[in-house]
Amino acid sequence: MYKDVKVIAFDADDTLWVNETYFRDAENRFAALLESYETNNKIHQELFKTEIKNLKDYGYGIKGFVLSMIEVAIDLSDGNISSSKINDLLEIGKEMLHAPVDLLPGVPEVLMELSGRFKLIVVTKGDLVDQERKLTKSGLLPFFHHVEVLSEKKAEDYLKLMDRLDISPRDFLMVGNSLKSDVLPLIEIGAQAIHVPFHTTWAHEEVEDHSSKKFDTLTELKHIIELIG
Amino acid sequence: MYKDVKVIAFDADDTLWVNETYFRDAENRFAALLESYETNNKIHQELFKTEIKNLKDYGYGIKGFVLSMIEVAIDLSDGNISSSKINDLLEIGKEMLHAPVDLLPGVPEVLMELSGRFKLIVVTKGDLVDQERKLTKSGLLPFFHHVEVLSEKKAEDYLKLMDRLDISPRDFLMVGNSLKSDVLPLIEIGAQAIHVPFHTTWAHEEVEDHSSKKFDTLTELKHIIELIG
Repeated sequence: MYKDVKVIAFDADDTLWVNETYFRDAENRFAALLESYETNNKIHQELFKTEIKNLKDYGYGIKGFVLSMIEVAIDLSDGNISSSKINDLLEIGKEMLHAPVDLLPGVPEVLMELSGRFKLIVVTKGDLVDQERKLTKSGLLPFFHHVEVLSEKKAEDYLKLMDRLDISPRDFLMVGNSLKSDVLPLIEIGAQAIHVPFHTTWAHEEVEDHSSKKFDTLTELKHIIELIG
Repeated sequence: MYKDVKVIAFDADDTLWVNETYFRDAENRFAALLESYETNNKIHQELFKTEIKNLKDYGYGIKGFVLSMIEVAIDLSDGNISSSKINDLLEIGKEMLHAPVDLLPGVPEVLMELSGRFKLIVVTKGDLVDQERKLTKSGLLPFFHHVEVLSEKKAEDYLKLMDRLDISPRDFLMVGNSLKSDVLPLIEIGAQAIHVPFHTTWAHEEVEDHSSKKFDTLTELKHIIELIG
């Protein structure tokens, strides 16, 4: 099934390394900073709503997340938030940008094995500077032919990418943790996809699967070796 | 001289459309908001210093600019800045993100003329989401094969790009307003470049030219037609 694959594309956040966990930690620190103004639940809910509202302006990534936190902090405190707490939010963002890159289990082994046999690329959403920084820090750069940072990961975005790479969908295999972004759009355009779920998924990435399961799901990335054979 | 060119790459901000002007306007509004705390000159100076300091974390673009403005506002006011003024800074950012795309003179005519004869691409720094938004708004998308958003525009970044496009430097012509980013790195690697200065240049992009002038400088983009012939 995977024999004709020419290019294997890996999602980055929560596929190669831990990411969502840092956002959850930041959200909890944010809620703690605002606890005198609102309930924990309301703070999380407003932050999520504001992030979605701002997504078309800010895109994915840490900078937009920080700007949304500041907006919610001013809003939920009725303008009473102190500038020292706003400064704390800037600091949370910088800490996230400097966070270590924690590789997920089996990642270097799998990439080493596959990079000799396939052209490997990274296809990720998020912020260009931040993704390049993480990739450099990760030490995984030598395994990849290059990195594609997309503003969205919908079927049309993947078609444009394959057009640019001069490759047809049937030769393209995507590996990632998000059903919505890394799997279903690929199945839709006749490419292949392998789903490797991470334990935490951002609500915005959650989706129902109506694809009648035309793809494999792995509990650990390392099983991809047996699958590809 | 330009006969063998296969790909013509255009910078976007201040080459295809006005950009720096919006940043200058935003800086002036920022200085006005802080006028009770510091002199105009000091405010501009601190903002510039902070932007440069944050560049490796935030990269280029509006979101990082807004985060830097917030940082400076808290700092120069000794934490006394009101949250309503911080909210104004968020609004300045959103207005910049929604600003109209003002094409520079001759841009559509030049692209129409050249797109039939060369493969045209956009090569820009800045924020991926923002650059894609501007390109869509500009109506220029049909003229371009695709868009490359780079985190930096140094010689090595251009070499990587040409490698990815499978093209040699001698076949590559870059057109842009920044000597530092769009011209000198290209001359350094044996590619070609045409300089079309914009009336305003961000201090960070200013550079001395030691290239002994191995490129053409145009006062208006439309003259590129005569030059390429």
